[in-house]
Amino acid sequence: MAEVNPSQQPTVPAAQAIHHELRNAENSAAFVLPTLQSMKMSNPYLALLDVGAGSGTISASFAKALPDGHITAVDLNPNILPRARAVAEAAGVTNIDFQQADVKKLPFADASFDITFCHQTLTHMSAPEDALREMLRVTKPGGIVAAREGDFETEAVWPDLPGLVKFHRFAAELMRSAGGTPTAGRQLLSWALEAGAERSKVAVSFGTWSYHTQSDKDTWARGLIAVVKGGPMREKGLNAGLTTEGDLDEMIHDWEKWAASSDSSVAMLHGEILIQR
Amino acid sequence: MAEVNPSQQPTVPAAQAIHHELRNAENSAAFVLPTLQSMKMSNPYLALLDVGAGSGTISASFAKALPDGHITAVDLNPNILPRARAVAEAAGVTNIDFQQADVKKLPFADASFDITFCHQTLTHMSAPEDALREMLRVTKPGGIVAAREGDFETEAVWPDLPGLVKFHRFAAELMRSAGGTPTAGRQLLSWALEAGAERSKVAVSFGTWSYHTQSDKDTWARGLIAVVKGGPMREKGLNAGLTTEGDLDEMIHDWEKWAASSDSSVAMLHGEILIQR
Repeated sequence: MAEVNPSQQPTVPAAQAIHHELRNAENSAAFVLPTLQSMKMSNPYLALLDVGAGSGTISASFAKALPDGHITAVDLNPNILPRARAVAEAAGVTNIDFQQADVKKLPFADASFDITFCHQTLTHMSAPEDALREMLRVTKPGGIVAAREGDFETEAVWPDLPGLVKFHRFAAELMRSAGGTPTAGRQLLSWALEAGAERSKVAVSFGTWSYHTQSDKDTWARGLIAVVKGGPMREKGLNAGLTTEGDLDEMIHDWEKWAASSDSSVAMLHGEILIQR
Repeated sequence: MAEVNPSQQPTVPAAQAIHHELRNAENSAAFVLPTLQSMKMSNPYLALLDVGAGSGTISASFAKALPDGHITAVDLNPNILPRARAVAEAAGVTNIDFQQADVKKLPFADASFDITFCHQTLTHMSAPEDALREMLRVTKPGGIVAAREGDFETEAVWPDLPGLVKFHRFAAELMRSAGGTPTAGRQLLSWALEAGAERSKVAVSFGTWSYHTQSDKDTWARGLIAVVKGGPMREKGLNAGLTTEGDLDEMIHDWEKWAASSDSSVAMLHGEILIQR
């Protein structure tokens, strides 16, 4: 669920969306694609629900992968929907629609979808197992629920500049203070079992993302600097007393230094589950 | 470099080797294989050096991948060599030989090998950049140096039982006290540049390993319990005052509990570099 300033222009991504919009099905849902392809062979008219779709870049690539299927993309934040529609239009896909919805109470009948997917959504929730239970409810028997969540505690940044160490602690603390889980990736299986899935019907895998080329590092640092400089992280962090102006300045300085270093990189584990409904 | 009790029988793997012998080129050197295949197209007689080969399971699978090539596998510990030869014999490969050697002073002329490889070797060394410099020295111009190292700080274990939290801290401390680096994976690029590689000639990637099926978890827990119960970790840890009998018992208890949990898994990031010589 992208956090977006309500005052933003719909066609201009907010600071946080710079990162979110790097995502597509190939880099963020590769663990689902083989199953998707094999389901498509027996039924090209698959209905896929993308929960917490944000600006919809992953949803749009699912729409391309399922030209005869239909994608329903939902997000808790209604302000992101115009941006998501613009992203889909720019991608040239029409087999998709967007609506506001809360994953805790999805406005869909039982067994509505063949595939229910989320990415980097459960990590922000205080009761992720309830969300998975709801995702299982709206999924057809024989369908799948697929989730991929980062495990922020495994974030590996080099060089370990002091401002980046502070950033990591601050970001984890901020996530926890909002009810989120910085170790979501490793807990997905556990949440799936709490949501009622049988162990034998859950396939577990782990993926990575990393940035180490100059252009990827520039994009990554630019996005983080934007949220630390004037975005929601600054405001929320200062309001909650989790950081100081001085620390925020050090974070900005060190992300700039990091991006300019020849030996820098950032990588993180993602947990992945595929639940057979 | 496997740490092996000198008194062990050569054909019976020591406790630590239970893990090491799960490794092969497919699961531990996948990032090298496409380059290996393309080099093999122009020269089937490739010479590959595997540094810190331990019991040689990765070396043996390189030997299979290069039937007309030749593998030289070295390890600092001469006591592992009989085991490594037995592994190669069991794998049915003969285009391989093993010898004792120190990566800091490799007994080979400059430009002897087309591919020089190591896995989980630099993480144990106090001057990994010197090892990479030496690996570059023995590699032919046009050849490659490939390294893959775990990043132990990213180890993600669930459930986070108290004994496993203690185990993680203890293992990292033990590694550091022996001169090793628990964040090796993220530092590989930095070490390569210190060793004299040009940034434009280093390709960076990150991989994962994880255990989450019942049989993999049983193997993993059995291996760790063996080293904590009576292997080198217990002895070294107690001698260095890094742990207590009580803590070690708690670690054993909780690895057993972990293996028996339906929601358990362990995953870790690995850093990978390919240096064009």
